[in-house]
Amino acid sequence: MPFIYHRTVRFQDTDAAGVVYFANVLKICHEAYEESLEASGIILKEFFTNPSVAYPIIHANVDFFRPITCGDKLKIRLIPQKLSEEKFEIDYEIIIADLVASKALTRHACIDTATRHKKQLPNAMNKWIQEYKFVPIF
Amino acid sequence: MPFIYHRTVRFQDTDAAGVVYFANVLKICHEAYEESLEASGIILKEFFTNPSVAYPIIHANVDFFRPITCGDKLKIRLIPQKLSEEKFEIDYEIIIADLVASKALTRHACIDTATRHKKQLPNAMNKWIQEYKFVPIF
Amino acid sequence: MPFIYHRTVRFQDTDAAGVVYFANVLKICHEAYEESLEASGIILKEFFTNPSVAYPIIHANVDFFRPITCGDKLKIRLIPQKLSEEKFEIDYEIIIADLVASKALTRHACIDTATRHKKQLPNAMNKWIQEYKFVPIF
Amino acid sequence: MPFIYHRTVRFQDTDAAGVVYFANVLKICHEAYEESLEASGIILKEFFTNPSVAYPIIHANVDFFRPITCGDKLKIRLIPQKLSEEKFEIDYEIIIADLVASKALTRHACIDTATRHKKQLPNAMNKWIQEYKFVPIF
Repeated sequence: MPFIYHRTVRFQDTDAAGVVYFANVLKICHEAYEESLEASGIILKEFFTNPSVAYPIIHANVDFFRPITCGDKLKIRLIPQKLSEEKFEIDYEIIIADLVASKALTRHACIDTATRHKKQLPNAMNKWIQEYKFVPIF
Repeated sequence: MPFIYHRTVRFQDTDAAGVVYFANVLKICHEAYEESLEASGIILKEFFTNPSVAYPIIHANVDFFRPITCGDKLKIRLIPQKLSEEKFEIDYEIIIADLVASKALTRHACIDTATRHKKQLPNAMNKWIQEYKFVPIF
Repeated sequence: MPFIYHRTVRFQDTDAAGVVYFANVLKICHEAYEESLEASGIILKEFFTNPSVAYPIIHANVDFFRPITCGDKLKIRLIPQKLSEEKFEIDYEIIIADLVASKALTRHACIDTATRHKKQLPNAMNKWIQEYKFVPIF
Repeated sequence: MPFIYHRTVRFQDTDAAGVVYFANVLKICHEAYEESLEASGIILKEFFTNPSVAYPIIHANVDFFRPITCGDKLKIRLIPQKLSEEKFEIDYEIIIADLVASKALTRHACIDTATRHKKQLPNAMNKWIQEYKFVPIF
């Protein structure tokens, strides 16, 4: 089951073209990621402030299909996927009234923050992936 | 009765000092303002996108009493006050677990966006102020 | 010849992990794009404020090879490429002391802002592409 | 002699009202502060990344006199002032073509980052204040 995050588009997300500034769509996706971690029982303060393990983004991409404007009610659909013992990626769909306005992806490596070497994903992250990953019916 | 807005501190709000970047506290306050307008029946998309009347901020200030970190659950208490037929200001308190972490204020002028001249606050804004303004008991 | 943009990493670009927040790298790339337009003789105020033609981003991607921290002196190398009469893309390399820290790409469509239909790139944009595009020696 | 920082307004600084988003003016002021520190010989990377001494902002305010739009060439005039052995503030004027578009102020406390207790301003900061502070002629 994917994780669903609801978010109203704020004035600060927009630019002088009257729509959401392109890079801010990725910020909104990262918010959905944070919210899904918390929903899975992870304490955000420990996860992001002076942690011993971190998950830096090594790749991101985003496609835009229709403009997103201030006040829009977004539904962000998040699906994580494990790539290896040390890597995962997340697919995002930004939906407005059942139409996909944007799609994005972030790819993360698991590292030891002291050495910055790669390391195995801890149990809490494997549990989070299990909870929200795609499960084909057939 | 003040308006209350609940908001989790996001990773993007923080800086390399590990706390919320000072100017981002004002962005969070503006979110509370947007949320209160919507709660009062105002359509955000019309309010912020190509409107005939706008409410630019002419002054803002903010005080910081304790650090705010990623994952903190903020309660923002918002109280508007009418200053004249063409001006209002908003008081904000950012509260974490019953402690005031920050206080802020934004002062707004009502203008005609075509001429950029000041004009009287429309009924919808007077109604919004009435709903959330401070009412002393004595 | 590619366009080169020099930029110091600011405190506001960073997050609580002590490095540049991933989506802010794309903001820095967009700054390089704006600077290159201006260097080519385009007036930014007319280009971005109520224009009749706009170039919304329809795709962006970014790869991160090493962390970027506050105070870093970035050299952004920008190369545009025409994809069709109505589309172009831009390649960016973010370089710190001769090492590539990040690579990014933005793809843009040319549209009429009144109808939001695609239209041919105007002369000024073709000139800009000509100036900075990649020219193989062999 | 005040410190002068030159800055072009970027598309990302603007909002759907077509002008600079109010809180982003404070970000631009902070950039001027960073640039002035560097001009005074301070290494930004050491100053902002895991320092033993930090200068959190305890108060900020900003006034807006005229709209600032994308492409505007800003001149930011920065003047620091020592308030006590442990505090200083900075005045900023944002000038477009000799007209003051905005004024701002940030007030900073000097703290030990390990204990978060106040401490005396180090020599490098006193030197920076001396260099750029206001010196009346009479």
